[in-house]
Order: sequence, then C-alpha cells, then structure tokens
Amino acid sequence: MKGFAMKKIGEVGWVEKERPTLSARDALVRPTALSPCTSDVHTVWAGAIGDRKDMILGHEAIGIVEAVGPEVRDFKPGDRVVVPAITPDWDSLEAQAGYSMHSGGMLAGWKFSNFKDGVFAECFHVNDADGNMAHLPESISDAAGVMLCDMMPTGFHGVELADVQFGDKVLVIGIGPVGLMSIAGAALRGASEIYAVGSRPNCIKVAKEYGATHIINYKNGSIEEQVMELTKGKGVDRVIIAGGDVYTMSTAIKVLKPGGKIGNVNYLGEGDYVMIPRVEWGCGMAHKNIAAGLMPGGRLRMEKLIALIEAGRIDPEKLVTHRFQGFENVEKALLMMKDKPEDLIKPVVFM
Amino acid sequence: MKGFAMKKIGEVGWVEKERPTLSARDALVRPTALSPCTSDVHTVWAGAIGDRKDMILGHEAIGIVEAVGPEVRDFKPGDRVVVPAITPDWDSLEAQAGYSMHSGGMLAGWKFSNFKDGVFAECFHVNDADGNMAHLPESISDAAGVMLCDMMPTGFHGVELADVQFGDKVLVIGIGPVGLMSIAGAALRGASEIYAVGSRPNCIKVAKEYGATHIINYKNGSIEEQVMELTKGKGVDRVIIAGGDVYTMSTAIKVLKPGGKIGNVNYLGEGDYVMIPRVEWGCGMAHKNIAAGLMPGGRLRMEKLIALIEAGRIDPEKLVTHRFQGFENVEKALLMMKDKPEDLIKPVVFM
Amino acid sequence: MKGFAMKKIGEVGWVEKERPTLSARDALVRPTALSPCTSDVHTVWAGAIGDRKDMILGHEAIGIVEAVGPEVRDFKPGDRVVVPAITPDWDSLEAQAGYSMHSGGMLAGWKFSNFKDGVFAECFHVNDADGNMAHLPESISDAAGVMLCDMMPTGFHGVELADVQFGDKVLVIGIGPVGLMSIAGAALRGASEIYAVGSRPNCIKVAKEYGATHIINYKNGSIEEQVMELTKGKGVDRVIIAGGDVYTMSTAIKVLKPGGKIGNVNYLGEGDYVMIPRVEWGCGMAHKNIAAGLMPGGRLRMEKLIALIEAGRIDPEKLVTHRFQGFENVEKALLMMKDKPEDLIKPVVFM
Amino acid sequence: MKGFAMKKIGEVGWVEKERPTLSARDALVRPTALSPCTSDVHTVWAGAIGDRKDMILGHEAIGIVEAVGPEVRDFKPGDRVVVPAITPDWDSLEAQAGYSMHSGGMLAGWKFSNFKDGVFAECFHVNDADGNMAHLPESISDAAGVMLCDMMPTGFHGVELADVQFGDKVLVIGIGPVGLMSIAGAALRGASEIYAVGSRPNCIKVAKEYGATHIINYKNGSIEEQVMELTKGKGVDRVIIAGGDVYTMSTAIKVLKPGGKIGNVNYLGEGDYVMIPRVEWGCGMAHKNIAAGLMPGGRLRMEKLIALIEAGRIDPEKLVTHRFQGFENVEKALLMMKDKPEDLIKPVVFM
Repeated sequence: MKGFAMKKIGEVGWVEKERPTLSARDALVRPTALSPCTSDVHTVWAGAIGDRKDMILGHEAIGIVEAVGPEVRDFKPGDRVVVPAITPDWDSLEAQAGYSMHSGGMLAGWKFSNFKDGVFAECFHVNDADGNMAHLPESISDAAGVMLCDMMPTGFHGVELADVQFGDKVLVIGIGPVGLMSIAGAALRGASEIYAVGSRPNCIKVAKEYGATHIINYKNGSIEEQVMELTKGKGVDRVIIAGGDVYTMSTAIKVLKPGGKIGNVNYLGEGDYVMIPRVEWGCGMAHKNIAAGLMPGGRLRMEKLIALIEAGRIDPEKLVTHRFQGFENVEKALLMMKDKPEDLIKPVVFM
Repeated sequence: MKGFAMKKIGEVGWVEKERPTLSARDALVRPTALSPCTSDVHTVWAGAIGDRKDMILGHEAIGIVEAVGPEVRDFKPGDRVVVPAITPDWDSLEAQAGYSMHSGGMLAGWKFSNFKDGVFAECFHVNDADGNMAHLPESISDAAGVMLCDMMPTGFHGVELADVQFGDKVLVIGIGPVGLMSIAGAALRGASEIYAVGSRPNCIKVAKEYGATHIINYKNGSIEEQVMELTKGKGVDRVIIAGGDVYTMSTAIKVLKPGGKIGNVNYLGEGDYVMIPRVEWGCGMAHKNIAAGLMPGGRLRMEKLIALIEAGRIDPEKLVTHRFQGFENVEKALLMMKDKPEDLIKPVVFM
Repeated sequence: MKGFAMKKIGEVGWVEKERPTLSARDALVRPTALSPCTSDVHTVWAGAIGDRKDMILGHEAIGIVEAVGPEVRDFKPGDRVVVPAITPDWDSLEAQAGYSMHSGGMLAGWKFSNFKDGVFAECFHVNDADGNMAHLPESISDAAGVMLCDMMPTGFHGVELADVQFGDKVLVIGIGPVGLMSIAGAALRGASEIYAVGSRPNCIKVAKEYGATHIINYKNGSIEEQVMELTKGKGVDRVIIAGGDVYTMSTAIKVLKPGGKIGNVNYLGEGDYVMIPRVEWGCGMAHKNIAAGLMPGGRLRMEKLIALIEAGRIDPEKLVTHRFQGFENVEKALLMMKDKPEDLIKPVVFM
Repeated sequence: MKGFAMKKIGEVGWVEKERPTLSARDALVRPTALSPCTSDVHTVWAGAIGDRKDMILGHEAIGIVEAVGPEVRDFKPGDRVVVPAITPDWDSLEAQAGYSMHSGGMLAGWKFSNFKDGVFAECFHVNDADGNMAHLPESISDAAGVMLCDMMPTGFHGVELADVQFGDKVLVIGIGPVGLMSIAGAALRGASEIYAVGSRPNCIKVAKEYGATHIINYKNGSIEEQVMELTKGKGVDRVIIAGGDVYTMSTAIKVLKPGGKIGNVNYLGEGDYVMIPRVEWGCGMAHKNIAAGLMPGGRLRMEKLIALIEAGRIDPEKLVTHRFQGFENVEKALLMMKDKPEDLIKPVVFM
C-alpha cells in the first residue's frame, strides 16, 4: 500500500509498504479524511522525536473500517469511525492510574507516526479497536470529524487542566487550531471573559465566534500589560497555553491571580528549561498551579465530544480553512502546515 | 418602616417596624426590585421553618445602599448592589471548611426571613457587607439582577453538585425557575444532551432556549422509561434534581449510569425519608453518588455570575414572566408563587 | 479439576470440572491460600445474585501461575501472585470513565463466582493477566496476601469514598474484617479520632490496634447518642459504613456534620429502599454527601497496597483468626463465615 | 512593651512599643512559648520582604489571651491558645475562593512580622480572634504547641499539594523542620516508601522516626540517580519540596513519573527563574503537575492538627532540639536559626 512518510529528518516522500497485520483485538481502517498537524512538522523538520526512516506520517484521520480481529465486539467492516491521535493500552499501570496517554511510558499512548506508522496511508492499524475507535454518526461531516482526532480533544484538555469554573476570566495564549478549541471549550465550560492572544485575522474571526470576548495582539504592547489593564490590575483566574515557547510560562504566571491555574497543551519543541518567574510565583508560595499534558485518547473521549457536536454545542468545522481532494495532496497540505500562510487554520485532505 | 411579613403560620400582612440597626461591618439596603420565592410560600403556609411572628419575608432583592458601617471598605451609600439569599459568617469553622452556607449550623448561612427580617421592606440589613454584597453593573437590568440572588446560584449549584463534564448527558428534573437555571448551567458547563422533565408550555419554551435538547413530559409515560429509551438503555451520566418530592431520588437513581452523579437543589418539604432504591443503587455498590445542598452565597459567587451575564453567556431575565410596579404588589406576587398560574415562571416587583 | 461450588441456592458441594481454557492475554493460577467471604454466603444462602448451578465459589485467593497466554508480558508460570476480587475489562467505556469495577455493566467487573467460576478450585482463570494480577513479594505471608484480594481494598475504598482529610473525626460502622480495614485505612489517611461501632471482643481488640480511639457498643445506648456525646454535639466529619442494613444510612446522616461525607462499602442484601432521613439531611440542603461503591480491582491497586504492607504501614494479617490446612477444609471455613462464631474475624485455607 | 525587632535590613535588636490597640473582633495574646523561623532569618538578613524599620519579628507563638474585643465569642482572657502564622481576612474574595492565605493579595494572609508587628513581644495582636486562634488543650505541651503555628501546617500542606494517595512512593526534598513534618504527614496520608533527602544526623534520626523508609544523602551521588535506583528506574509518584533552591524543581521533575505531582512549600529566596527541565517535563505533555503554596492558616486548620496530636497520631515535639528559658534568649534562638548548628532542628523560647 501507499503511504506518505518521513524518509529521514528533514525529508518526506511517498513509500510503498505492506498492509499492517491484524491481531485479535485490532482493526484496519481506510482513511476518508486526513489532516496534517504541527506535530508532523516538528517530527520531520525539527527531529522532535528523533530520527525515523520511512515512517508513515499523520495521526488525524477518520475512515471506514476495512477489517477487524476476531475479538473485536463493536465494530465491523464498513463502519465509519473516528480514531483519536492517542490510542492507549488500557490495561497498563498508567491507564489504571488515570493517565492512559502515558501508557507504557511518558507520552507513549501516542503511537501513530511515533512508534508505528501513521494514518497518511491507504490503510492504517488501530490497536484495541473497541477501546480506541468510535462510530462517527452521519450527521457529522468528514471535515468536522477529523477535527475530533486531536484539535478538539487537545484544546478541550487545556480547559480541563486549567480547571475553568463558572464565571472565571480566562486567558488563552495562542489561537491556532488548538487554541481556538480551547476558547470554545472555555466558553462551553462556563468562562465569562475570554482573552485570546493572537494576530492573524482569520483566527481572530473564529476566536470571536467561539467565544473570545477580547483579542490581545502582541503588536499593541506586552501581553502582561494588556491583560492587567483589561482585568483592572487583578489578573485572570485561569490561563490556557496553546502556543508560544519556554518563555510563555512566564507570561502566564505574571498575569495569573494567586490561587489561579495554568493548563498547558502546547508542545514545547525547544529550549532547555521552561521558566517560572520566581517573584511573581510568590517565591513558591502563590498557589499558581501548573498542569500540563497530552490529550486523553480512547473511545469514550471521542464519544463524549461527538455528543457535544451532535447536540449542537460546538462546530469544529470552522477550523477547516483549506480543503484538498485526493490523497496525492497530503504533501501539499503538510507543507502548508509548515509554511503557515496567513489565512490558514487547518487543512483537510479528502480521499 | 413598612414590611411585608409572615404574621404567623398561614397568615401574611403588612407590619411597621424600626429600621434595622447598623454594626461596623454591615450595610442597610433599600430594595429596588424584589422577587418572592417558593421558599417564602413554604415558610408561611407549610410552616417549613417553624412558627415566626411578624417576620418580614423575602430573600431575593437588589437595591441601593443606604448606609454602611465604619469598617465597610468597598461600598458606600448610593451604590447599586445585589445581595445573595445566603449571607454567611465567613470566619466560622464551617466557612473555613468550604461550607459557608452552613456557617453557624446546618443551613444557618440562610438568614433573611429565617433568623432575621427579610428583604420585603423599605430597608433591609446585610451582615458583613464587604463579604456579602456585590456591585451590580448598569448593563444588567433590575429584572435580571434579582434573579442573581437565588435562582441562578441555586440552579448553577445543582450543576456543580452533579459535577457535569464535557459531553455528559444530563437529566434535569423540574423546570421551574431553579430547574431552568440548572439547564442553562448544564449547557454552559459542557453537557451534550439535556433532558428536561416538565409539562408547562412556558417553561418548556424557556427550557429549550436555555439548552434542553429533549423534553420529558410525565403525561407521556414514566420518566424512567422515557429516559432509558432516549439513551438507548444506557441511562444518563448526571441528574440534577430541581423539583419533585422524596420519591424523586428513586427516579434519579434508576436512570443513572454506574459512576454517575446526582446533584439535588430541591428543598424537600415533606416526608420522613428520601428513598434510595436498593437494587438499582447496586446494593450500595454502584458509585451512584448523591450530593445535595444549599447554594453558596457571598460576594464572590455574585461577582462570578455577574461576569457571566456581562459576557453574554446567559440571560436570566427570561425567567421573569410577571412584572409588578410598586411595593404594594408584593402580596399579589407572593400569592402568585403560591397559586402558580400556568404561565408563571417568576414574578418581580419593582419598587 | 476439583472445585467447591454453589450447586443451587442454599446448597454447596464439590464439583469436578474441566480446567478453564486460556486466551492470549489470560492466565491460569493454582491457589495456595483462599478465604471465603460474606459475599459467598450471600450468594449461596440468600440468592443475592440469583440462582447458579454448580458455579465454583470464591473470589479471594493468592497462588502460583500455572500458565499464561502468548500475549502476557509480565508474568510466567511459577510466579507467586495475588488476584483481586475485581478483574475489570480495562478498555471498556466504564473503565475509561474511571469506574473499572462497573466494566460492562453495574458491578460487572466482579467476575469470580458471579459471571464465571471462582477461585475455590485447583486452578482458576484470570482475564487480562497483565492488568489484573500482581506479583506478591516473599516478604508478605500467604495469610496477609489473601487479605489483599478484597478485605483491604474494600475497607480502604470506604476511606476514599468518605474522602478522609487530616484531623477528621471518623465514624466507622461495622468492625467485621472490612470495617477493621476501614479503621486502619482511616488512621493511615490522617483521621484523628476514630469511633468504631461493634461489640465482639476480638474485633474490638483489633479495631484498637488498627487505630480506633473509641468503641461504640450499641448495647450501651443508641449509636447516635453516643456519637453526639463523644463529639460534644457537633457530630463527625466522615462516616464509613462497613456493616448494617438499609437503616444504617439513617444513623450515618444523623451524626454527620453539614459538609460531611459518607462512604459506603457495605453490600446491602435486603430491603426495598435505603432510607435518608429528610430533616437531618437538611431537607436536601445539608451537603451531607453519599458515595457508595464496589472496590476498584486490577493490578495497580494491588501493587499500591502491597507497597504499604512492605513499607510496614499496615499488617492485614491481624484479620486472620482461623487457619485451615488443606483444600478439603474450604467448606468448613465457608460455614464458619456463615455461622460467625464470636471469635471469628476471617478464616484462611492454606492449600 | 518590649519586643525583639528587625531594626533594618541586617540588624536586629530590642524595641519598646505601645501595646497594640484592640478592635471589636480582635484579641491580644501574651506569648508563653516562641520559636524563630528561617523566614525571620530571610526577612532580616536577606531582605526578603524589603526593608522594615523596628518591626517586631516572629510568627510562631502560643500564649495566654490577655484581652478580647466586644464581638469575640469563643475566647476570653486567660485562655491558652495557639495562633497560626497565617491569619486571613476570612471575608475577602480570595478566602471565599478557597485561598485564604492570599486574602487581600498574594501571600497577604501572612501578617505577623510582615504587615504588622510579630509575636516576639510581651503581647501581640490577633485579627479576627474567633477565626484565627484555637484553644490549646492541656494535654499538648508548650513545645509541641508552638510547632502548630507554622512547621506542622506547612509540612502537611506540602502533602496536600502533592496529593499523596494510598501506597504512593514519595520523595521529600529537605529534612529541616518543615520537611520532617512533610515526612510525618506523608506517612499519615498513606504513603508507602518515603525517600528523604538530607545529611544531618539529627534530622535523619527524626526523619526515620516520622516514617522515612530511605535516606538519600547527596554525598553518595546525585539525588536523581539514587531515586531512580531505589525505584528500579520508575521514579516516584509524588515529590514534596521542603528545601533547596530554584534548581530543586529540576530534580523533582526528573525523578517524577508521568501523572505524578509535586507539592512545593519551600520559600524560594533567590534566583530569577524556577527551572522546569523541558525534555523531562515531556515537552509540556507529561502531566507532571506542580502545586506550590503558603500554608492555610485560621482556626479550623489549628483545630484539625490539634486533634491529630491529641489522638496520638503524631508528636511534633520531636522537632524541638533546643530549649531556652526566658524571653531575653530570643535573640540567641534566632541567631541559632541563622547559623544552623549541625544538631539543630528547631529551638523554642519559653517565656
């Protein structure tokens, strides 16, 4: 079968591989819609997970089940499914402890285009099909469906990590697709004012539609100053970090109230240390708590988010700014994620 | 000053009293909008809190500060304020434990028309003004403001007690004003499908506007059967009880998934025992947890809910179906709460 | 192979069965120590789970691995293991939601002598060996080890459900083996005073050794009165229910402070309704919260409890009052659990 | 009255001041036992809170009530009381949000020898006596009592911040008096193995008595390597930081499992940034969560800890290595905290 792969660090291209083999509890899925992710860009061009040879890329796909192992109960060939980016081993000690995304080791619940071939292929393998896929109802479009794999659960996990409560004022740093989902999630979790940090017009438009009440553009001055002015010097209750670098934490700490919480879902690709400013952190005494983590995967999370879309609470399709017909365009879509044209939020490739 | 009072169990009428005296940290407030509550009806006609003589009724009011004690920092005469129904002693052991509504004893954070005169008066007393009042911004109408005293915090507390999570399917039993606020709160907290139990057309209309996806009318069969059919036999993740009697708990348990949670904010006025059905409760093994409690009061809660209204996340004014001009109409409004005409949700009296 | 079985409701006896078959991820274990449980008594003589024909009894055993399926990673024949009473399907939706004990349905994580043959056999079957067994270190005796299957995790789960915090005053109702483990767990979780309700001398002795500070004997007056006297009328912060019947909840509610919590781990075998006294429950307003549930099973929980024993924090062997040598004595041990001689806490059969 | 004060940065000495004035809800207390804290050393010699002129030092004292304001309910002259280092304004918005230690601003619940005179005086002032003092029972010695002000609640708060669960393996960094209390608290909260980092023989002895199972001495190699060896490469579940500097966080992150938690109660006096190592923090994806904060103060916390001592769960007096008779020795005791002789844990001055 054909796949679009990382040949080595810095190089991508098409590969021809055997179809994956199928174990008793697994499934094979033929993708119908794909989306490249910034993580794919990091993997290939920043070497974020080390070198890989001819590893098929991608971890965001919906598709049609082609085959299932004999012990799979709830899925059969022909079913339309969404597969989350994170597909844990559910009986691992980490999953039993509530951290399935780290099953088998730190971040090791992330398998696609990390420990095995990804989804940019004519067919891909899903471990523990009953635990790691969900039926995608007809009412949800392909474009919306593929946002369920990573963008929506990652953005929403930021809201959970920051533990947003009724009436909280929330700062969301970064309004790429994940940050936009954090905005939507914060609004859906009871935030009052939501301050969104970003400058690209397309993203700002969607940020407002998803519930941002104020836009903070770094071109208008420091983020800290703008937040403190908007909050009359009090700071915010919660910060969700969905973009930036190792210094972004410093901004978050500075604008956060004592007793506030930070949720980070931004993958930090560079730098030795993430920096917590000592004084503004109350010399370690301020209860400005920091939670940071990979999205939870698995079937239940998919079903819960599907239910939100079906109930009309959210429409993730607004993220999809660019659409390509045909698998051959996956390279174009990936390079677009790399180059980030100004009007891009998220591209989708329909097969 | 004039007040509208409970003369004794079963009898109401006007009384003339001295204005309340003012301690160092307290305030006197002249109400500008009032609303009677079902609790007032229970107090007078069901003797729910025992007998009282000439006790001024009411615990839902917004108004203008008339006077403050010398230690009050943040309020001054002329300020427009909302005062929550629950006004705790914040340094009590109960408040330090996180249960300010029980400061000084079970439910004893509820003082208006319980341990002291209520708000249906030309002037009423607020203990610990800095801790128990909030500035009401001009952008919020009188009618919306008075819904902040009890309806909105009580309904929202049901959502907190039931601990609604992203994508949960939620049953709300009762669509009086509190239940309607629970619906709005559940939607605002990330519920997917919300099943609302009720039959009055006006309430159904508002329930849908606030986010109910399905209406369950007991005239169409048992609630249990309807919920199990809607959820394909799986039951709901959460139940919020905002109406009913001591048998309502039984319905809640029966339609709840194992691991589900119940939040009760319904005042149970009659019956010796609240009934948990043993078998459906898994013989005490099902993790169908029950949380039940009085709304949190105090200034912070008011400010958080005000922020939600100001950010446009919710409009509680939809609850207000009947408006009266003039204090003299408070009796009419109260009797309306007692008689519950079919089109009533909540009456407000403007002074 | 030989097994000791429930022949039908009210009748037990020996059966001869095929050895269980082995799937890819499963294991077969030869028990070395067994213990009958009150649940076995309920199953046989009260028909608690309905009728069963020739179902092998028992869910508390340690043993030696005889065989493992080809996909088992961490266990091999000859390993000494403990197997918890609850052995979930870890990829089920319930387990993904944090309620593995209800995997596949309410209480359905409990499989031994419920949905399949139990452990009173020459050999028994463990589903998902890597997820549901733990290595038992040599430092832990057989007698202590078999208390890990059900008594210790159930008793400790009561402490978790009641959410005991530093300095809390805790009432433990019932000082059978589970209640005694709740006492030990409450002490180990930071309780200050622990009031233990019971009357049997042997149990009282162990209750004190495990950390009970006061014994409440129902022969000396009502439990409510004794607790209120001990707490100077304030009541307790937490109640753990590890014995009693459907009226026990009423006692718990009456002696609990507002804002307090109840954790129930008592299997309620009879009665239509569990009774919550309305007035003492604050008419549904008192924040006297009720959590009730089956113990969590699986490997991680076993490993955590093993670590506690190895660190010397607790010695569950104190529960073992009667020891039998030889599998043939399992009937005698079971009947002892049924008849409950006064000096009995828990019998163990060594194979 | 006489007090021992910070004259300016770097200088201490005796001052003569008016006795504090008394407001309606306050109390005056005559200390009977005092203890200097490392914070006093930071305040004077590191200028940690900026310059102060003739500010009386000290925030750890028990004593006898001399006078109370007319609104104080539960205390009267002659009562023996303990006063916590943190005495919040309980009606502040921060306290209502659950963070009373930050009432009025970050860390502003800490008033003694910060915003007002401290306790090293013939008499000191307690704001909100009913909310911020507790009766000290006769069964608790003066030496144990004074450990209740700061050492015990701070050490125990580290355990709460790290959220220790049954069977967790816990690393405690620092075995000064706070770290020793964290060890005791972790054992009392259900930790299994407790690894204590330190080298002073006296502290090591007490660490073991309080429940440390392993001592990690930096002289025997890096802390990271020793922890990873003890845990067979898996790392610990929890870390409590009770000593060290801005680089200590790096150690904590490196030895922590994904899904683990860090609780910091160490006051960080120097350095621009607290350093989180990016890669070991899973590039922001590892769910290695960081909580850090000042101890909660107030009466309830005191009463809960008193109950623990009275129930015999812990004896904080083991911290007291040096005893001085007479107020005049407070300078000697303070200098001892500055110079930290090898056998010192904590000095107490009896008046």
